[in-house]
Amino acid sequence: MPVEAKRKRSAPKQKPDYPPDGISDIGEGRKRTIIEGVSPEIDGGRYPIKRVVGDDIVVEADVFGDGHDAVSCAVMYRKIDATEWTEIPMRVLVNDRWRAEFTMTEIGRHIYTIKAWVDRFKSWSRDLAKRVEAGQDVTVDLLIGAELVEEAAAATAETSAEYAAMLQQYAQKLRSGGSVGVQSALASELEWLMYRYLPRRFANWYDRQLPLVVDRERARFSAWYEMFPRSCAPEGNRHGTFKDVEARLPYVASMGFDVLYLPPIHPIGRTLRKGRNNNVASQPGDVGSPWAIGAEEGGHKSIHSELGTLDDFRHLVQRAKEYGMEVALDIAFQCSPDHPYVKEHPEWFRKRPDGTIQYAENPPKKYQDIYPFDFETEDWPGLWKELKSIFDFWIAQGVKIFRVDNPHTKAFGFWEWCINAIKREHPGVIFLSEAFTRPKVMYRLAKLGFTQSYTYFAWRSTGWDLTQYLIELTQTEVIEFFRPNFWPNTPDILTEQLQIGKRPTFLTRLALAATLTANYGIYGPAFELRENRPLVRGKEEYLDSEKYEIRRWDIDNPESLRNYIALINRIRNENPALQRNDGLRFHHVDNDQLLVYSKSTPNLDNVLLMVINLDPNYIQSGWVDLPIEELGIDPRLPYQIHDLVSDVRYMWNGVRNYVELNPAVMPIHIFRIQRRTRSERDFDYYV
Amino acid sequence: MPVEAKRKRSAPKQKPDYPPDGISDIGEGRKRTIIEGVSPEIDGGRYPIKRVVGDDIVVEADVFGDGHDAVSCAVMYRKIDATEWTEIPMRVLVNDRWRAEFTMTEIGRHIYTIKAWVDRFKSWSRDLAKRVEAGQDVTVDLLIGAELVEEAAAATAETSAEYAAMLQQYAQKLRSGGSVGVQSALASELEWLMYRYLPRRFANWYDRQLPLVVDRERARFSAWYEMFPRSCAPEGNRHGTFKDVEARLPYVASMGFDVLYLPPIHPIGRTLRKGRNNNVASQPGDVGSPWAIGAEEGGHKSIHSELGTLDDFRHLVQRAKEYGMEVALDIAFQCSPDHPYVKEHPEWFRKRPDGTIQYAENPPKKYQDIYPFDFETEDWPGLWKELKSIFDFWIAQGVKIFRVDNPHTKAFGFWEWCINAIKREHPGVIFLSEAFTRPKVMYRLAKLGFTQSYTYFAWRSTGWDLTQYLIELTQTEVIEFFRPNFWPNTPDILTEQLQIGKRPTFLTRLALAATLTANYGIYGPAFELRENRPLVRGKEEYLDSEKYEIRRWDIDNPESLRNYIALINRIRNENPALQRNDGLRFHHVDNDQLLVYSKSTPNLDNVLLMVINLDPNYIQSGWVDLPIEELGIDPRLPYQIHDLVSDVRYMWNGVRNYVELNPAVMPIHIFRIQRRTRSERDFDYYV
Repeated sequence: MPVEAKRKRSAPKQKPDYPPDGISDIGEGRKRTIIEGVSPEIDGGRYPIKRVVGDDIVVEADVFGDGHDAVSCAVMYRKIDATEWTEIPMRVLVNDRWRAEFTMTEIGRHIYTIKAWVDRFKSWSRDLAKRVEAGQDVTVDLLIGAELVEEAAAATAETSAEYAAMLQQYAQKLRSGGSVGVQSALASELEWLMYRYLPRRFANWYDRQLPLVVDRERARFSAWYEMFPRSCAPEGNRHGTFKDVEARLPYVASMGFDVLYLPPIHPIGRTLRKGRNNNVASQPGDVGSPWAIGAEEGGHKSIHSELGTLDDFRHLVQRAKEYGMEVALDIAFQCSPDHPYVKEHPEWFRKRPDGTIQYAENPPKKYQDIYPFDFETEDWPGLWKELKSIFDFWIAQGVKIFRVDNPHTKAFGFWEWCINAIKREHPGVIFLSEAFTRPKVMYRLAKLGFTQSYTYFAWRSTGWDLTQYLIELTQTEVIEFFRPNFWPNTPDILTEQLQIGKRPTFLTRLALAATLTANYGIYGPAFELRENRPLVRGKEEYLDSEKYEIRRWDIDNPESLRNYIALINRIRNENPALQRNDGLRFHHVDNDQLLVYSKSTPNLDNVLLMVINLDPNYIQSGWVDLPIEELGIDPRLPYQIHDLVSDVRYMWNGVRNYVELNPAVMPIHIFRIQRRTRSERDFDYYV
Repeated sequence: MPVEAKRKRSAPKQKPDYPPDGISDIGEGRKRTIIEGVSPEIDGGRYPIKRVVGDDIVVEADVFGDGHDAVSCAVMYRKIDATEWTEIPMRVLVNDRWRAEFTMTEIGRHIYTIKAWVDRFKSWSRDLAKRVEAGQDVTVDLLIGAELVEEAAAATAETSAEYAAMLQQYAQKLRSGGSVGVQSALASELEWLMYRYLPRRFANWYDRQLPLVVDRERARFSAWYEMFPRSCAPEGNRHGTFKDVEARLPYVASMGFDVLYLPPIHPIGRTLRKGRNNNVASQPGDVGSPWAIGAEEGGHKSIHSELGTLDDFRHLVQRAKEYGMEVALDIAFQCSPDHPYVKEHPEWFRKRPDGTIQYAENPPKKYQDIYPFDFETEDWPGLWKELKSIFDFWIAQGVKIFRVDNPHTKAFGFWEWCINAIKREHPGVIFLSEAFTRPKVMYRLAKLGFTQSYTYFAWRSTGWDLTQYLIELTQTEVIEFFRPNFWPNTPDILTEQLQIGKRPTFLTRLALAATLTANYGIYGPAFELRENRPLVRGKEEYLDSEKYEIRRWDIDNPESLRNYIALINRIRNENPALQRNDGLRFHHVDNDQLLVYSKSTPNLDNVLLMVINLDPNYIQSGWVDLPIEELGIDPRLPYQIHDLVSDVRYMWNGVRNYVELNPAVMPIHIFRIQRRTRSERDFDYYV
């Protein structure tokens, strides 16, 4: 572990948990600055915050010293395996709070921390100015200053003779005293030289190095399309192949998606194979569930032969790239009874007293066709290594995005180790956590390494529910480590809202997913074709689910939402405010059936206003209240809003304006706000 | 450091800051539980929370595991130098939040942390119940359970043959199967045995041990009286002595104070001695400031000869005890130019280029009669040890309470080391921080060890200001580490409010100090005699301040507030709600000149309601809104309130009641609320 070893040597000394008894345990007792209240900081620095390349990070801290001396401080950051720190001076805000900002330029794991010191020159020059103003004799004070300047000159003599000479000149002027001495003492050039070169005696490091993971941009902004390859054959009941998927690429790309996510592509078990509609008994010809992974032919590193070969798969990955899409694989760590692991590594599974292998259960439900791994196996190191090698195998085939099935039923420690070990070698890899479970478990998985996460979005249907949930996701500490990925449907989740919904419900659910968070996805073609027949009314399983059979989809159906989806994705691609989650704000409207929110970039150069009619049946209207000054609008002037969905423009005035949406026509507005509208000549259609 | 060394060996392994690269660095990969969100926890466990003996502590945490297995967890705590942990099982609340409570019984430093484990028996019996309810065959499940019970029996065989035998019997019943097996499996006795004896495989410790300081009760509840010994002589202009202080003890005790705090009692410097009213030139006979510490006769371990001898001092300490009072000393780490340290340890002071010693300054102000210690001295270990030895010296004379002068102008690191080193040996010692400085500095001093702290109370005069400040002190994390001590006046602080105030202002300021927080103090006899003449109108220095001269006080003046103060202190002593800060709540009243708040004990057996007229000139009245159910009052019945100040009783009804206070009579009510008032026969004056 050369990297780790290096890190440890260069790390600031960690403070002991308890005050030491003896003075000899103190180390240096003259460090007089305090650094606390650092933000962002997740769980005392145990887990990293997340950013993507190009993101700014704003670090704040409370920094102060004893007595009246002035302090200075700086954020120090570096890639985890770098040896040199980058220093960003902090500026003081108020009440001993300091801030610095910087931009992340490289992907990979970083660390940041804070360094503070009593700033002897700043203290001295501040006091000198006060003494001069009070008309005091400053002869001795200028001598004290000269000694400081000479100390800086000596310190820089080796590295920069030029600056050392400049400092020596200043020292002479200070020693000469009088008004020349005072003027020289307060020169801003000297201030700069002294910040840079005066030894920072007894400088103090914050007692933690805080981790920061920088991902590539797709971690923050992505549009996913889930599709079953075996349902892609254009003709008859033939089993679809990777070649068929390739033929489907132009269709998916035309809708504007950039991640094509395939359910497991491995050999499917035969023992206890599930039939259509999750029947416990399968019929001859039934294709089984792709999540019943493993057969005699192979397991997680093999390809289901009916889909094609490994070469075909690599070819598909390459072709998708040409369409601007990445192929994402579904990694489900579980085995059918036929998986080679069951024979090769019986120690990775739990035995029952009757000698059988423990199948998956959630009592009283039994899933006899699935064997879970036993994460309490004696050979957990062997199991962990093998599971990690599955990711490594597919990374070698060109896959850089993984959707991980049910990570919450595997040991947390495994994920932390596995994801971080992979990202150390391949920092661009993206992991989407498919955990639909209790909130703290979902957050924990995000903290320990998952790049993106499924959410409760599918079940948040009212304006109040959506508002509360999105505030939690985007306006609390959660935004630092949890990147939500909103899905209106999945092969497992056909919500009741969609079951009873018609076209307007599909339109609004897609618009909500695509504009509330920067990552979203759909399971298609079920979604765009508005498939919503449940197996049992009130449960969330699809009738004739693709999980258990091959489906034909009439993708050219004129009722398809494909053009609408393409429009929404185009709007997302053209408006940076929709490519991030930190600019989301909800606004008041006097009708609970309407949901109004804005998204904006930090500098307000892109501000969108979404107005959604949540009622699929009736026209709804209301008055919207906008904090227009916060959105960068001059309150004295009218402003133009441009509906990017209908391409209609409106003039609005002041904080309160009227909206009305007919679901039979289009239940959503996505307004782009044109901020400075001096006169009609400023409208862009005038140009 | 044998204690430290022992602690380190028994501490749970600390988690590395970054995920390890190699599996071999993981240790045990089968720990499947997560412990996070622990409260209370100050700055990630860097600083202790504070309690006193008899206090309860409520610990909460988020605890969960992967998958569907049940988890169990417990708070583990011990004195820092104990080897055995005490285990308090936690119970689940909601949303993976767990809680446990326990009572602190011993003073001293403690640590607490949390242990969690996948509870195999709880998981198994929960699943068994579900299977039985679904009518499934549980033969194999009972065998699995029997194996678990046998594992517990084997584990306890050595320590308790009796329990082992009981477990073996249960195992047999489980193995026998059928309804006997099921009934035995779900017996609560077995549940208890299994919680106690089934090995907690792969148990997980929270990765921090959180410190907890338990003080004696006076740390939480105390009434301080500051008095200059040299002004205690009853006759003429004689310099007061410790004997005179002894003669004054009955007077102070009659007012109900329990801490008698004396300004510095050491030899006073002669060089540049200050004259009356802080005159830079002293006249012959001027006594100087007790804070200009040190003369040829001695320094911080010597006694100003005009006060008496060390024996006299020890005698005073003993006599005070007989009156229920402790003597608190003022420790001011600074030197007059005549202090022996200046000659003996010139290296502890900063030199200026002209060879003189750097005196105290806050430019442009200069304090040439005071030399501060240089905490950046090369010999900082020597300086630290000597300063600590000053506390040790006075502890040896029987002093257990110290008021520390300006701790914020000494190095934080020194205080953390010094206070903790002293408290390890003398856990009952109390340190009051006299830091009037920026908020974060004041909080930091409290975190690193000060027992009590001066506050901004003197400058909080409006109801809004007081409410905001007290909410911060008592209803945020601050309450865990910062114990406020409210002073309406000090020798340095004669507020403008008191300068322009008359009797009602003194009455309300005392009542506020004595009822808002459990620790408070006054500088007397100036306070009870309503001394309020400033040196300069608008500044806070007293005219003819005792800091620079001997004062005579007519303590028998009939206008004195001594009886009022005695009453308030008696009310404090008789009402536990006033002896703690956690039961404070402010209530709405429709008049900003009135301030209304309640204090209550956790079980609501003592509930007081304070109504204060902040206007010293006019009668003020208003309607008070009370959350009567939160205060334990049956909303269907009238309730009695007893004004402990006037000894008048009122019947109130419902949430809204009228109050009126005439400052010319008495500007405060301290009502005790009698909760259950079934009929007039329940009134205590009926008995």
